[in-house]
Amino acid sequence: MSKAIFYHAGCPVCAQAEHGLLQALNASAGPIEVVHLVQEPSRLAEADAIGVKTVPALVLDGQVFHINFGASLDDLKHA
Amino acid sequence: MSKAIFYHAGCPVCAQAEHGLLQALNASAGPIEVVHLVQEPSRLAEADAIGVKTVPALVLDGQVFHINFGASLDDLKHA
Repeated sequence: MSKAIFYHAGCPVCAQAEHGLLQALNASAGPIEVVHLVQEPSRLAEADAIGVKTVPALVLDGQVFHINFGASLDDLKHA
Repeated sequence: MSKAIFYHAGCPVCAQAEHGLLQALNASAGPIEVVHLVQEPSRLAEADAIGVKTVPALVLDGQVFHINFGASLDDLKHA
């Protein structure tokens, strides 16, 4: 893995959940770039070009993994 | 991360894609168990109990990450 980018849109429950996923990624691969597309709308075109259709999404070496982790109401109750 | 389980249903294109994700996971966390739910239907109840709603899904320490990586027709053309 030479490049990892994590795109998201700021959902706090999602961010918490995904923190676990990013922590589990191989540290030897170097830092994972985290892009908040609401705060950095200038990068929307880049994400679109890579093939990101929904967020959160993890891109590893150009391969997009869409993570379907919308916040359930149960999660919100305990956030 | 003390336990990682990857549930899938055997889609070859998805398996190829997810291989990249599993490789990127921290090797120090120990082996990732891969469960093919079509071949091992006896584990469906377990996956259901953990909260797996769709496959492929990655479970890290009981936290479910649903990965929405259905095969696109483009992927199938190049598989």
